[in-house]
Amino acid sequence: MSKPVAIAIDAMGGDSGPAVVVEGVRIALERNARLHLTLVGDEDTVKAEMEKHGLQPSSRLHIHHTSEVVAMDDPPSVAMRNKKDSSMRVAINLVKSGDVQACVSAGNTGALMAIARFVLKTLPGIDRPALCTTLPALRGHTHMLDLGANLDCSAEHLQQFAIMGATLAEAVDNVDKPRVGLLNIGAEEIKGNEQVKTAGKLLEETEINYIGFVEGNAIYSESVDVVVCDGFVGNVALKTSEGVAGLIGYYLLEEFKRTIPGKLAGLLALPIIKSFKKRIDWRQYNGASLLGLKGIVVKSHGSADAPAFANAIEVAMIEVDKNVPDMIAAHIEPHLGNE
Amino acid sequence: MSKPVAIAIDAMGGDSGPAVVVEGVRIALERNARLHLTLVGDEDTVKAEMEKHGLQPSSRLHIHHTSEVVAMDDPPSVAMRNKKDSSMRVAINLVKSGDVQACVSAGNTGALMAIARFVLKTLPGIDRPALCTTLPALRGHTHMLDLGANLDCSAEHLQQFAIMGATLAEAVDNVDKPRVGLLNIGAEEIKGNEQVKTAGKLLEETEINYIGFVEGNAIYSESVDVVVCDGFVGNVALKTSEGVAGLIGYYLLEEFKRTIPGKLAGLLALPIIKSFKKRIDWRQYNGASLLGLKGIVVKSHGSADAPAFANAIEVAMIEVDKNVPDMIAAHIEPHLGNE
Repeated sequence: MSKPVAIAIDAMGGDSGPAVVVEGVRIALERNARLHLTLVGDEDTVKAEMEKHGLQPSSRLHIHHTSEVVAMDDPPSVAMRNKKDSSMRVAINLVKSGDVQACVSAGNTGALMAIARFVLKTLPGIDRPALCTTLPALRGHTHMLDLGANLDCSAEHLQQFAIMGATLAEAVDNVDKPRVGLLNIGAEEIKGNEQVKTAGKLLEETEINYIGFVEGNAIYSESVDVVVCDGFVGNVALKTSEGVAGLIGYYLLEEFKRTIPGKLAGLLALPIIKSFKKRIDWRQYNGASLLGLKGIVVKSHGSADAPAFANAIEVAMIEVDKNVPDMIAAHIEPHLGNE
Repeated sequence: MSKPVAIAIDAMGGDSGPAVVVEGVRIALERNARLHLTLVGDEDTVKAEMEKHGLQPSSRLHIHHTSEVVAMDDPPSVAMRNKKDSSMRVAINLVKSGDVQACVSAGNTGALMAIARFVLKTLPGIDRPALCTTLPALRGHTHMLDLGANLDCSAEHLQQFAIMGATLAEAVDNVDKPRVGLLNIGAEEIKGNEQVKTAGKLLEETEINYIGFVEGNAIYSESVDVVVCDGFVGNVALKTSEGVAGLIGYYLLEEFKRTIPGKLAGLLALPIIKSFKKRIDWRQYNGASLLGLKGIVVKSHGSADAPAFANAIEVAMIEVDKNVPDMIAAHIEPHLGNE
């Protein structure tokens, strides 16, 4: 595929701001000849960072000056109302106007979701956008949503998430009919709260390959491609996973330190453990998609490093190539009558 | 402490029934000279198992015959109404009548909770019993509740769980003012759903050492002693943890198999990984307490092995020694006016 892809980058977002973003941009441009990027942010700051990385404005790399920045702790309402010339807002505006095909931001998640929803609007049949990421699994990976965009979800919202997740998995993994599971506390039909039980019935009525309830351990297994849950549960599951990975690393090191053969094994095992911890860390396993909007928005983790930020840009490229919003619109259409 | 402790054992419960239970009983009796057990179940079956393990009825080991068994897949309502002479029901009756000080069952969790609540009743000020277990943490362990007894909880329920969990941690760990955290999707006060935000405010009004919201990764850290959540979230967090541990074991083995130094490290690391997986597996990290009842009920995992079942008996012994129900009643009393 040599079709050019144009993406806007919120150059001021993230814990380290332009320093990490611009380096990530350099990596992504090197790896992808058809990539055209617009760096949105304070022109002087962005230029200074570009010089550090030997980058010049070119036909593949523009700067779009903005005067404001959304802080990592700005409440979404403040970011929305008071910062209309923020790098985040303008990057999303460029998607809306059609100047670019997607945008990537490592900024404040709450603000990004609020602004993206306000500017781009949700697709017909989608009440709320959801945040979806990939997680490592026994063979390949699993897509999981929602991860914190929506804390109180109705059964209908979960149904929409399921359709969006199935669409993304189909687009990204090139699989037909990815298996979709609803996260619950047991696989039996009588288990679960009312919200999940009702959502299960709604999912049986869809065309997606709904395989029923799955438990938390399924996320990391090979039994399911898409795991659907509300944002509260999804966020807890994700953070809990990070905690377990951290504890395992600690236990292994402790145990390895205790004995001579252990010390040897530890030296050998350490890189493997580190690589695993990196894989399970959202900051590294980077590029969460904000699904359900009339436009493509990818969230990079605030503390992602430059190669991870480049990954997030490549996630956006895939969604552009597949036109994920149109795919979602097509898949949700048969359910529009339900509204 | 040489004070005798009398505990009733549901001899028919669990995936393997009396085979595992009776062996666990033998281990617990050997380890604890002051332990007196009543095996509740079918007399012939129990006697046959006892003979296999060289056990005779004695002043420390009685058999209490019952004619019915609650199946692992019986709906709680069926177990309650139709099986009044089940080993589970009669073991709980013996707690109610004061013949024993606690009971332990590896049977059907839903049935155990329903029957225990019906027979023993909840303490004043407690609306619902909660299931609490200990999980490994960076240094020591964390107590977590609820783990699936209550799927839809109000803020008041979470407040009660917090007081019960703090009481158990105080009793079991001999710590003054254990740190209690409320599981949420961020540590900031504005984060979370309404239920959690309201519960946070209620917890600030209690005498317990409430440290605020904690995220999923805190469960396995050293930052908190008791983690409180509703049963849906708790169950997902627990199962997700099992999934991560399983995936890590798999990754490590794969990686170790790939290279010669890896193979060596793998041989050395394997027992360490296995021991970790065992620690994080609820089946092994055994003995979940059903808190909030006028009596002590400990749930052993259905697939626990004999040493794990013996652990569950010892959890019950600690709760008897400390009189956990009275401690909970004392701690909940200042909040009775709130009802």
